[in-house]
Formats: sequence, C-alpha cells, structure tokens
Amino acid sequence: MTDELYGRRVALLAADGVEQAEYEQPREAVEQAGASVRLLSVHGGEIQAMNGDIDKGERLRVDAVVSDVSADDLDALVLPGGTINPDRLRVDPGAVEFVRSFVSSGKPTGAICHGPWTLVEADVVRGRTVTSFPSIRTDLRNAGAEVVDEEVVADKGLVTSRNPDDLPAFCAKIVEAFAEGRHSTVAG
Amino acid sequence: MTDELYGRRVALLAADGVEQAEYEQPREAVEQAGASVRLLSVHGGEIQAMNGDIDKGERLRVDAVVSDVSADDLDALVLPGGTINPDRLRVDPGAVEFVRSFVSSGKPTGAICHGPWTLVEADVVRGRTVTSFPSIRTDLRNAGAEVVDEEVVADKGLVTSRNPDDLPAFCAKIVEAFAEGRHSTVAG
Repeated sequence: MTDELYGRRVALLAADGVEQAEYEQPREAVEQAGASVRLLSVHGGEIQAMNGDIDKGERLRVDAVVSDVSADDLDALVLPGGTINPDRLRVDPGAVEFVRSFVSSGKPTGAICHGPWTLVEADVVRGRTVTSFPSIRTDLRNAGAEVVDEEVVADKGLVTSRNPDDLPAFCAKIVEAFAEGRHSTVAG
Repeated sequence: MTDELYGRRVALLAADGVEQAEYEQPREAVEQAGASVRLLSVHGGEIQAMNGDIDKGERLRVDAVVSDVSADDLDALVLPGGTINPDRLRVDPGAVEFVRSFVSSGKPTGAICHGPWTLVEADVVRGRTVTSFPSIRTDLRNAGAEVVDEEVVADKGLVTSRNPDDLPAFCAKIVEAFAEGRHSTVAG
C-alpha cells in the first residue's frame, strides 16, 4: 500500500461485457495507491463481466448510475475494455456526456483495449495520441486520433493500452497520471 | 420454396460472437429462395454463436476460410451482427480484403445490426446510405457514410438493417437485391 492516490476519487465506468481482468487489476492498482474507487454503469444493480468476451465471469456490483454522477465529484476515470462493454456505454447518452465532460476537463483518464471506443463516441480523441485493441484503431483514426502501437501511451493525462497483456504497464502509468492530476492544456 | 435465387452462390461471413438469429434467418431466407449458401469465417472448424451478445448459442460449422475464397466465386454476401463477430472479422486481413473486394465489385451485400462495422474497416461506406445498430453509427459517419434510422435501407445493392427486430424486412430485401444482382454504378 502506497499513498500517491490518498483521498483521490477514482471511477471505473463499465457495462455488461467488461473484460474482468481489465476491471479488477486497474481497480486494485489505484486502491493499493490509496484511492477511493466506485464502479459506475448505465444502470444500477450488477453488471456481467466476461473473460475473453465469450465466457461469463463474475457479476460486479454497481455503485452508482453514471448519469447521477457529476464529473466534478471525481478526480480520475478508468475505462476498462471488453468488446460489448463500450458498445453498451456508447448508446447511453448519460455515459457519453459524462466521458465527454470528464476528459474535456483535463482530468486524468485511463482506457484500455476496447475502452477507448467510448472516447470516439464522446468525440474527445481528436488530435490526441492513443493506442487500443487493433480492431477499433480505424474508428479512432476516423475520429481524429493519432494511433500508435505501444503497450502504454500517455498524452496529457489520457493513458491508453492495447490489451490485457499490457495491464502491468497500464496500471503503473494510470497511478502515475492520476497522482499528477489535472492537465490544463487540453485542446477544446 | 421459390426460385428467385436458384443457382446463386451466397456466402455468410461471420466469426465467434455472431448473433444467432441474424445468421439463421437470412440463411433460411436465401435458401428458401433457392440459393446455395456457405458460411465463411476467419478459421475452419466451428464458430460460437451468441444470443443477445452475452449468452452462448449454438456452434456453427464453418464451410471455408474466407482468405481461401475469391469474391469472383460468389454472387452475394451477408454480414450478420453480434458485437464480437465483426470485432474479430476486422482484425483479419483476409476477411477485410474479401469484403472490400466484394462490395467494391457492386455485387449485392446485406449487413445487419453490428454487421456494417466490418464495412468501416474495408472502407466501402464512403458516400453510401446505410443503417445499423445505434452503437456503431458514429463510426459509420466518421467513415463517410450517410446514416439513417430505418428498418431496412437499400443503396445500389447494399442492404442494411438495425437489429434482430428488423429481420423480416431485411430478409425480404436481401432476397430482392440478391435476385437483382450486380450494380455496375458503385462509386470507386
């Protein structure tokens, strides 16, 4: 246990289909660094985590519905992957508006695997350098991002990684970026 | 049984995660109209169909690997939905090249729900009018498509629908478009 994130309020935003390891490991990393963590989703109750997209994993308890939460009340955001998860976030106006508001504010955000797909819907990748799972890179490019193929990329507080194998690098980098805090120079 | 598609060679292209009803119903419709149908995928053996993306459905026998098949040997193509299915097609260069080649040739193609997502990767929606499941509409627009919200849209042999509820309209329209055959006026 360290204290880089002591008192920081971190949200993970996810829906049914979230890749279980990409939820658990970032959560553990920021909690170990002292953060208070909540799971936000598009509905209350529980969401269904998956392993490798096809096999059901655990059911995860949702702490709050994203449309009831203000970006002002959080310090950092994690968007885990899993293919179906962002597909369900993208069609929820509250989730998309929350992500748009949060990322535009310059507060640090981590997104891994298919997680960056929601950033496309929120139109917050224009001019940003990101990585992702290979399948959504065309969508990121078409939305104006500069896409690279690296295990972790940090661009003014926006931390992205490609897949579960990148989790150690991703978790280390989000703790660093979340400790650093808000970037004030994000393009509008 | 009718004979509008007698002797026509129709392929369904799908991968693990294909929405079962969106595979079965179009297949049955074109078979009922007399077509010979094959399932192409990114690997041999079987693929895992899903119901509502989260629950496993049947395993489907693959007839041929898409990279071994020439678009010249087929008359029409169906791209079923399911969120994970196109996500896996998009990262297979053989599948993407096949779709690019097939759609560019002006031969009739049907794509439903998340099926049109593969058309984004193949860069064949620029200037075309399409519909899709709501979650991928931003990606279609960013790839240059005109996106509408209708149960079925046909634009020069490219037939698209939104979700499983649209299957009756989609199936009727693909049979009609597949019977009509190749369009020679597709923009390059």
